Amino acid sequence: MNAAILSTGTELTRGELVNTNAAWIAAELTLLNVPVAAIDTVDDDRGRIAEAFRRLASCHDMVVCTGGLGPTTDDVTAEGLALAADVKLETHEPSLLAIQARMAKLGRILTESNAKQAMVPVGCTVLPNHWGTAPGFSLKLGRATIYCLPGVPIEMKGLFKSYIAPAVAQSQRKTNVQIVIRTFGMAESAVNDALAKIEAKYGVTLGYRVHFPELAVKVVAQEDSSAQAHRVAEDAASAVGSILGSRVVFGRDDDNLPSVLGQMLRDRGLRLGIAESCTGGLLSALLTEQPGISDVFVGAVVAYSNTAKQRVLGVSDQLIQQYGAVSEPTAIAMAEGVRSALNCDWALAITGIAGPTGATADKPLGTVHFAVCGPGFSRHHHRIIAWDRSRFQRLAAFVALNWIRLLLLDPNAEAP
Amino acid sequence: MNAAILSTGTELTRGELVNTNAAWIAAELTLLNVPVAAIDTVDDDRGRIAEAFRRLASCHDMVVCTGGLGPTTDDVTAEGLALAADVKLETHEPSLLAIQARMAKLGRILTESNAKQAMVPVGCTVLPNHWGTAPGFSLKLGRATIYCLPGVPIEMKGLFKSYIAPAVAQSQRKTNVQIVIRTFGMAESAVNDALAKIEAKYGVTLGYRVHFPELAVKVVAQEDSSAQAHRVAEDAASAVGSILGSRVVFGRDDDNLPSVLGQMLRDRGLRLGIAESCTGGLLSALLTEQPGISDVFVGAVVAYSNTAKQRVLGVSDQLIQQYGAVSEPTAIAMAEGVRSALNCDWALAITGIAGPTGATADKPLGTVHFAVCGPGFSRHHHRIIAWDRSRFQRLAAFVALNWIRLLLLDPNAEAP
Repeated sequence: MNAAILSTGTELTRGELVNTNAAWIAAELTLLNVPVAAIDTVDDDRGRIAEAFRRLASCHDMVVCTGGLGPTTDDVTAEGLALAADVKLETHEPSLLAIQARMAKLGRILTESNAKQAMVPVGCTVLPNHWGTAPGFSLKLGRATIYCLPGVPIEMKGLFKSYIAPAVAQSQRKTNVQIVIRTFGMAESAVNDALAKIEAKYGVTLGYRVHFPELAVKVVAQEDSSAQAHRVAEDAASAVGSILGSRVVFGRDDDNLPSVLGQMLRDRGLRLGIAESCTGGLLSALLTEQPGISDVFVGAVVAYSNTAKQRVLGVSDQLIQQYGAVSEPTAIAMAEGVRSALNCDWALAITGIAGPTGATADKPLGTVHFAVCGPGFSRHHHRIIAWDRSRFQRLAAFVALNWIRLLLLDPNAEAP
Repeated sequence: MNAAILSTGTELTRGELVNTNAAWIAAELTLLNVPVAAIDTVDDDRGRIAEAFRRLASCHDMVVCTGGLGPTTDDVTAEGLALAADVKLETHEPSLLAIQARMAKLGRILTESNAKQAMVPVGCTVLPNHWGTAPGFSLKLGRATIYCLPGVPIEMKGLFKSYIAPAVAQSQRKTNVQIVIRTFGMAESAVNDALAKIEAKYGVTLGYRVHFPELAVKVVAQEDSSAQAHRVAEDAASAVGSILGSRVVFGRDDDNLPSVLGQMLRDRGLRLGIAESCTGGLLSALLTEQPGISDVFVGAVVAYSNTAKQRVLGVSDQLIQQYGAVSEPTAIAMAEGVRSALNCDWALAITGIAGPTGATADKPLGTVHFAVCGPGFSRHHHRIIAWDRSRFQRLAAFVALNWIRLLLLDPNAEAP
């Protein structure tokens, strides 16, 4: 069984939009054991859309198409498929009623353009859309089952998970269960090597997706029964967790490092304050992307200048003169200073050289000092992060977040 | 004249990588007045690559292919094109010497895998790669000129700009000049409407690219001579600037709003401090992404809790009790507090309700208060930004940056 993906839209062929939908669908199909042999994109031209459907349907078992189901005149995917299959379009009454109800809820009346979204090729199976207006549909053409989904990512993903993934599993007489293991701090190739035997041992498929600097490991089990798929996926995920260890694995599924850290602080009733220099606010911004973080995150001082370090954090001029702004004593003084200024339980400080200038003979570009202090303890860590400015800042912020996580797990944890 | 783009790589058909190269090439070709009718992706299979080359070459004037020129065994684009054109591969001696020299410079010896990168289809024109190892090449096939470029974005872009863009311009007997106008604060559709007559009036092509919440307007002039193209592009860019105005247009080409603001503060010898609540550090992070910002950015206080507002910024408990943390008096007190704490010239404060919780009857979700103060003045601005949490934070930060820019241009400027 193999698949092709067809994306339609002049916004894609004009390069106004990057085709993230195709990558998402390709990754999902790969995990479902359906190899994708082609990803094609055509503009909003019904003739070219029809030709692409015919060509792809002749040599694939499945074609997943996205885009062109909107209300405007350049949305012609349904017409293109009808042309390819040599059938007419007809109004699907339940969809029309659903669209009408949706419009009413938004306080609008049904226009002709909206009504057009209920027009589907004769003979197709309609896939109701619970995330938006236009329904999807599927149709047998040549060797393939064609699926047409809207281009809006949230709608496309909802329809894919509701209809295509189960259909694939059924055609393979299998149930799929996917667990995502969230990791940080180990290179993709090293993770790949460490997990080399998992697929064969557990009969699962692994997929990797980098969202710098985090790495997600997807574990997919495909089994005869749902219970068996869950068991196999859990066993394999647990083996992945044991192999990579808790220093690397920080969460599962929708977790991210800031959200996990927030929950850990919440569970322990601890409030955190931050003093950041080289990361310039990014560390705080990563935490405050999380809704509800205000119950554990008190605030931060972005001490980008020595003035700020001295005036707000109380780091002494003499200390900075003697050791430099990027040093262990300054990092510790910053952490202690912000802990006192914000009256919080734990405090983290980070100071370093993001570049491109600022390096010296004994402090190369990428030098960064971290300090964490709390009731009765203070810890220091130092490393060199050799990346460009933007990735240095992001990686340094994640190292800091992960270090607090490790210290919360074990007060004697070594620095990352 | 029309074009197709072919991307090769199993990392694309497996969804491990989003195809940003294709979007970039499509946007460039569109601006060069070459419509792109198809963007196809195939995996690393020489048969499927050859078939795609033959098919696309039969109905396009130009095919731009990226990927598969690397040293490993799965890099088979050259073989695929040779198969499609029914020619052999041969070593291109100057490229082999260049690769050898490059390896020597890196302290490595030439391996067989590297030498393979100098193998090109017989009869092709080699496109020397000054940005990496593998040369590109072009070959006439069917109706089309095929261009093969490496997949590494910096190499692909370098080769495209050096060989393809000039070749297109030459075949059109034209020279292209592109100016990018950077804007913020006006919706894409409104900008589009406002500039509706520019293309016809100046004989240029306009392109739009959103990098939320900034919008770039690309102005491309295609003329017989370089001097003429520069003149036309400048005239059209200047008209775009006049129509949109300096409240919307903040810069050109590689500018971004934080970098422009940094330069404006530098020119005026002013140092800025920030107090941010709802943006949680993002405003500072946007500024500190810019290298060299430390000469104008003193620092920030991320006053995420009332404790931080009171203890570090000196906002009185009574003021917060009376007006609330999200209010005009609190915003002004935060700005004055951070100006005094950091001893800076100008200070900005921002406080609002990012959601999803925290709204009240008289302060809906998205309410945000901005304050700017400096020697002898203080200003306040209030608005509602109705977006999800993440875009609320980003948009609020940009509104704040743009407002300072407007106030630096004109102290009496109205709030954005």
